[in-house]
Amino acid sequence: MTKISRESNSPSTPASTLTWQGDVDGYLELIDQTKLPLSFEILECRNVESVWQAIKRLSVRGAPAIGVSAAYGVVIGMQSAAGVNQDEFDSQLQKVTDYLASSRPTAVNLFWALDRMKQVAGGSQNLSSQDRLKLLLAEAKAIDAEDRLMCNQIGKNGAELLSDGMGVLTHCNAGALATAGDGTALSVFYAAKASGKNIHVYADETRPLLQGARLTTWELMQRDIPVTLICDSMAGWVMKEGRIQCVVTGADRIAGNGDAANKIGTYSVALLAKAHNIPFYVAAPSSTFDFKLKTGEEIPIEERASEEITCGFGTQTAPDDVSTYNPAFDVTPASYIDALITEKGIIQPVTADRIQEVLAK
Amino acid sequence: MTKISRESNSPSTPASTLTWQGDVDGYLELIDQTKLPLSFEILECRNVESVWQAIKRLSVRGAPAIGVSAAYGVVIGMQSAAGVNQDEFDSQLQKVTDYLASSRPTAVNLFWALDRMKQVAGGSQNLSSQDRLKLLLAEAKAIDAEDRLMCNQIGKNGAELLSDGMGVLTHCNAGALATAGDGTALSVFYAAKASGKNIHVYADETRPLLQGARLTTWELMQRDIPVTLICDSMAGWVMKEGRIQCVVTGADRIAGNGDAANKIGTYSVALLAKAHNIPFYVAAPSSTFDFKLKTGEEIPIEERASEEITCGFGTQTAPDDVSTYNPAFDVTPASYIDALITEKGIIQPVTADRIQEVLAK
Repeated sequence: MTKISRESNSPSTPASTLTWQGDVDGYLELIDQTKLPLSFEILECRNVESVWQAIKRLSVRGAPAIGVSAAYGVVIGMQSAAGVNQDEFDSQLQKVTDYLASSRPTAVNLFWALDRMKQVAGGSQNLSSQDRLKLLLAEAKAIDAEDRLMCNQIGKNGAELLSDGMGVLTHCNAGALATAGDGTALSVFYAAKASGKNIHVYADETRPLLQGARLTTWELMQRDIPVTLICDSMAGWVMKEGRIQCVVTGADRIAGNGDAANKIGTYSVALLAKAHNIPFYVAAPSSTFDFKLKTGEEIPIEERASEEITCGFGTQTAPDDVSTYNPAFDVTPASYIDALITEKGIIQPVTADRIQEVLAK
Repeated sequence: MTKISRESNSPSTPASTLTWQGDVDGYLELIDQTKLPLSFEILECRNVESVWQAIKRLSVRGAPAIGVSAAYGVVIGMQSAAGVNQDEFDSQLQKVTDYLASSRPTAVNLFWALDRMKQVAGGSQNLSSQDRLKLLLAEAKAIDAEDRLMCNQIGKNGAELLSDGMGVLTHCNAGALATAGDGTALSVFYAAKASGKNIHVYADETRPLLQGARLTTWELMQRDIPVTLICDSMAGWVMKEGRIQCVVTGADRIAGNGDAANKIGTYSVALLAKAHNIPFYVAAPSSTFDFKLKTGEEIPIEERASEEITCGFGTQTAPDDVSTYNPAFDVTPASYIDALITEKGIIQPVTADRIQEVLAK
């Protein structure tokens, strides 16, 4: 995995979270998000292991961006199969997709993107391996392009829910850095601004990995959207003080009934919003919905290493051998979500029927 | 301010958070809590500026410990007045107490302790300055001793509310490190354990300054009480998962109606507890009550430096020039507090009348 340091991207031309370089023998460039905001570094992923590592280590994160990266990861993992026979191609594809699927368990977009890649390969068994590889790249590029379009559409749909002068709270980073395009929750803010609505964003820092402090503030400052960074523990208090008129977050997986898994802490924010009569919105593409799951109780929750809590900043901040509990996600029940903002429209109220109705469009 | 490194105190003989050394010409020893848990260092405060600094920098923190430290700080600040006349003594006392009162604005125990010191001096104007200084030291030692007794009594009273096998959540550090004695909230846990009740504590790390991660876990591990460290954003989720049967925190100032100021994040925890039907208790001595204030809306909230959020661990974790909001405390309305645990008894329900009734004992 080659690392290239570049000058921090300027406000006028934000670099893309992920970029495919070259043709079918190309490679994937990723902004290394573990280094932001202090250093702007590009990772060049030229083998499938480096894509897996980038997802696992959170160099690329955010459910949609993980999906697009995994799709390109399949292409990279299959480049060595351009000359093999059909059985070997299919066997290698299975290995590559299984491997990439093992990188992170919660975001469903990962499995959704891998399924799309497998379907394309499955429907092209009569073609040469070289041609099947080309189809895989085309599909990955389609997922990428759809993601960018989806972000814009989510932004436009969600901006309808915001009013000029609002204070809005977000948790974690559901922005351009979490997608191939402009983001999900943050895309709503960008679209609101573009339509002339001035908003002020409060960003939860989002312990343990500080995606809010490191990524959301960085993105919003680049886009000239006023942002105030707070600790997660302050979210309830800024609501009490009347600073927040709505909350918008992303999601990593949404069950058929609308229960939504997202970064740990989202559940608390949703309950706090409810207690203050503040609308709580979740912005996510249709690829985030997992209709195999009836409710959020079936969503697997990734637990991550203790060191993220005890040593999250290169400095030990807790006693040696302290016990920790580090779930990376939680599930917000649909009853706490005032609307789901998707590229196909706003789902409100959040019910299984209404979800089906809007997503069928 | 001399710093002495000592070996970490052993479980069997925990060092005291604060210790007066010597007689009327003595000095104050404090555990430097900014260094825990990685380094156990004792600060020797031999002038009033070093006491002010220790309070300001949170080397000593926790409302009761601030009060006791300030009382000893008055003695130290008046040592140079042992030979002056009555007017000069009174004038210097006013300066010293005003100065110490300016160290932190929210915890009322600071002002309460300084008032006690001023009253002792005011009632002894017929004595020599040397004798008045002795009376000041005696009063500071009385505040110190009462604090230790108060902690034990709070522990005994509060332990009645806990049952064997409970999971309990606490926020910040209201332990031995926050008092001269065994603490307030944590004293309840120590007393529960002493009475044979096994409990498991979940400690919020308590951003930005991580008193939960650094201090509460350290204290509880020394006392062999099982503790699991979580990020503040996880409190709601561990409640949802059924891990928590009650919450106990401390308080820095309680208004006449029972509204309680405590470390930022406490308000959110109280609302989350309410949403899960989990009892929320506040443990604090009677010196924490400020009857000059009818409700919590009158409690001044200290705002602290942005760097606590953006650079809290010696590593910059947010973009240059990011805006932040850093209130050090919030106020939990009495309606969210199921009981106040004081040295004089349990106040339940939390109403102005019931507070007066119990504290009058």
